[in-house]
Amino acid sequence: MYIFSMTKQYFLSLILIMSISTTGFCQNQDEDALIIKDIHNYTLTEAQCYDWLTHLTTECKGRLAGSANAEKAVQYTKQMMDTMGFTKTWLQPCSVKKWNRGKPEQVHIKYDGKKVQLNALALGNSIGTPEEGILAEVVEVKSLDEVEKLGREGIEGKIVFYNRQMDPTQLRTFNAYGGAVDQRVWGASKAAEYGGLASIVRSMTLRQDDYPHTGTLVYKEDIPQVPGLAISTNDANMLSALLQKQKVMMSVWTNCAPGEEAISYNVIGEITGSEYPDEIIVVGGHLDAWDVGGGAHDDGAGCVHSLQVIHSLKGIGYTPKHTIRCVMFMNEENGLAGGREYARVSNENGEFHLAALESDAGGFVPRGFSFDADAEVLKPFYAKVSKWLPLLESYGLYFTTGGSGADISPLKSQKGLLIGLRPDSQRYFDYHHTTIDQIDVVNKRELELGAAAMASLIYLIDKYGLK
Amino acid sequence: MYIFSMTKQYFLSLILIMSISTTGFCQNQDEDALIIKDIHNYTLTEAQCYDWLTHLTTECKGRLAGSANAEKAVQYTKQMMDTMGFTKTWLQPCSVKKWNRGKPEQVHIKYDGKKVQLNALALGNSIGTPEEGILAEVVEVKSLDEVEKLGREGIEGKIVFYNRQMDPTQLRTFNAYGGAVDQRVWGASKAAEYGGLASIVRSMTLRQDDYPHTGTLVYKEDIPQVPGLAISTNDANMLSALLQKQKVMMSVWTNCAPGEEAISYNVIGEITGSEYPDEIIVVGGHLDAWDVGGGAHDDGAGCVHSLQVIHSLKGIGYTPKHTIRCVMFMNEENGLAGGREYARVSNENGEFHLAALESDAGGFVPRGFSFDADAEVLKPFYAKVSKWLPLLESYGLYFTTGGSGADISPLKSQKGLLIGLRPDSQRYFDYHHTTIDQIDVVNKRELELGAAAMASLIYLIDKYGLK
Repeated sequence: MYIFSMTKQYFLSLILIMSISTTGFCQNQDEDALIIKDIHNYTLTEAQCYDWLTHLTTECKGRLAGSANAEKAVQYTKQMMDTMGFTKTWLQPCSVKKWNRGKPEQVHIKYDGKKVQLNALALGNSIGTPEEGILAEVVEVKSLDEVEKLGREGIEGKIVFYNRQMDPTQLRTFNAYGGAVDQRVWGASKAAEYGGLASIVRSMTLRQDDYPHTGTLVYKEDIPQVPGLAISTNDANMLSALLQKQKVMMSVWTNCAPGEEAISYNVIGEITGSEYPDEIIVVGGHLDAWDVGGGAHDDGAGCVHSLQVIHSLKGIGYTPKHTIRCVMFMNEENGLAGGREYARVSNENGEFHLAALESDAGGFVPRGFSFDADAEVLKPFYAKVSKWLPLLESYGLYFTTGGSGADISPLKSQKGLLIGLRPDSQRYFDYHHTTIDQIDVVNKRELELGAAAMASLIYLIDKYGLK
Repeated sequence: MYIFSMTKQYFLSLILIMSISTTGFCQNQDEDALIIKDIHNYTLTEAQCYDWLTHLTTECKGRLAGSANAEKAVQYTKQMMDTMGFTKTWLQPCSVKKWNRGKPEQVHIKYDGKKVQLNALALGNSIGTPEEGILAEVVEVKSLDEVEKLGREGIEGKIVFYNRQMDPTQLRTFNAYGGAVDQRVWGASKAAEYGGLASIVRSMTLRQDDYPHTGTLVYKEDIPQVPGLAISTNDANMLSALLQKQKVMMSVWTNCAPGEEAISYNVIGEITGSEYPDEIIVVGGHLDAWDVGGGAHDDGAGCVHSLQVIHSLKGIGYTPKHTIRCVMFMNEENGLAGGREYARVSNENGEFHLAALESDAGGFVPRGFSFDADAEVLKPFYAKVSKWLPLLESYGLYFTTGGSGADISPLKSQKGLLIGLRPDSQRYFDYHHTTIDQIDVVNKRELELGAAAMASLIYLIDKYGLK
């Protein structure tokens, strides 16, 4: 009975899709509501995204750009796309710089004759320590500015411990991350500028636990490079409490090293538009993930969201008028080579991206979308999409302006609309860049609802355009 | 620096709280926004609800009404309230009927010479099987109606397997639960009505996994009582597939039994109102939980939410004008004795409950509130609270009309406003009434945000009333 009613419903939708005029929005609102309901029904009953993510996070885990598992992820998603009915699929080469963690990090603190091991991970792009490691006194700071204030006198010959926590009062945890992550990104260079020997950063999470969070650091030019690592928040609290009372020595040994340049790929599938083949709508996520985890929420979820958008639109029998591309971007985590190369080639080919939607904030329950564009086009674009809000509010989806996604940001110069999926953010930094970002912390329905939300918006953009 | 700025902020709020006029709403919107922000800031930095819930789910787990652990939960929450600055706290006796699971259930299917054990739990209030168990052929149905259609000819002497799944296309999972749970509640009596020997129900969850979900069944009067159990969804799928091909025998052995009447308690704390002591605002959850799990989301979360509301309002220095009661209701799961007794005593004492807010939908990120009242008063109440929505929208909170909570529903006759917290529902039935409803599936921030949302609404109701 259930199967029958679904089939009948899709049949009705198909009739509606074929019969709807394209002249206006208001008159079609009921039909659009029905199609958006169909997208959700189909996705919540027929979606394959959770199975795909299971494969990606187990068979292609730790898929940092240039690694063997990144290559496996490229092959897997390409093969998947080849079964999904795209007009064409291809691999777009991009040059990435490898980085290898090497053997497990060893970080200990020494005080009162004790030696205590800390939960640590080297930061991505970091150089390793000398073979004999680094042994030095720890100095705690709460900001890059504080390093400058302490100056060479306070920093030289020491290991700098950055311990400003993410602000728990920020409702959107990405804002809390944004307010603390400068320590991770620039901490090593700032320490080195004043003679520091290494930087140790409190992990970027609101939880108090034992998991260290890796993530990229960036070395400033013309400043000596020193190693950078993250320690867990529990260890950061413990170390900070110790430092209130006494001098603490730390030994750091890492084996990591930047590697050679390598060729990797963006994986692209295209459904050529039936009416506006030269106006492209991209939906994507990034395929690479930090080496230590499964890359489930970051950003396997975004990849399978994007594939599911195509699967769901196909599933309800929708034929897009615009060209829709599904892109698995490579190297978001430590270089953005894929996003840059995609935009470079697109510009070279004189393409126009009407819209690009990225999912790179996890597979949690969707709360809405953020819209971004060059100032002169954002206002009319946003006015247009805002008219669609009544169709999506009943799914708990809301609109805001703001950043979209790193991989699609280089497309901004084409003057299209950039869009970010906004899932609920509360749990994202519990797992971000850790060993525990695995399939078991992704809820199947929450993942599916994200894909359904994206497919619904893509449907509206495709049907009505943005003008 | 952080501590300093928080303290300063609370000081400012206190000044504001003291200086705000009570004559209108619009003029105070900025001040209200500041206080609601303070409630959130305080809760996200100083809340204790997660620690309380950890205690409740580990030291007082499986706290079914009348059990030793329910008594421990009563004592624990009473002691907690005694430290929280209530005007008075008390235990309100109520008569509950015990139910004991006894030794672990044994359910096997037998086919092709194989004997396979199923993951099963007896349903609450069920009688046990005879000591020798029940061995009979299984007949699968999708509804109570189907039992009637099959009649005595199809049902007599068999074990009835109810296998209609929760509808995955329902966005709010409680609606999917509501559409399937009649099988669990009434399935045993319906089977018995046509000579069935026992009922086996597919677990009430949208997940496909190995965890059976218990929950209450109700026996109809004048119909013989037969045992009722739930099996996991994976086992239900497997059994259903087998039944497509062949006859399957099932053996069922349970040791459960209804027990004697016992006295248990609602745990109540009251802050007597400074201006309207005779107008009561209740905030509560239910303290009892099914015997197999920790009762983390159901409904330890609601209990600690309610305690945290008081803790947070105290924390920002707010003095309520109305009487605010925090109530831990007893026996929601299998009798509602606590909710009924609370209302009975309240009516006897001629009390008036202006509003009652229950949290009994889990400790997930809050999405809003549902409002319910007798028809003639709902409209003006809802009109009033709707004016406050702009203050809560930025916290992702929305309002709807609809059911509130089982424990507070007997208060409806007092013509006040009944309110349910609406957390995100996607994961609730992953854990509901299972062994895995434990502290580790509760996210600390999501829990805290629920409490902050509740405290914000209570603040507005207390400040402005509902007229």
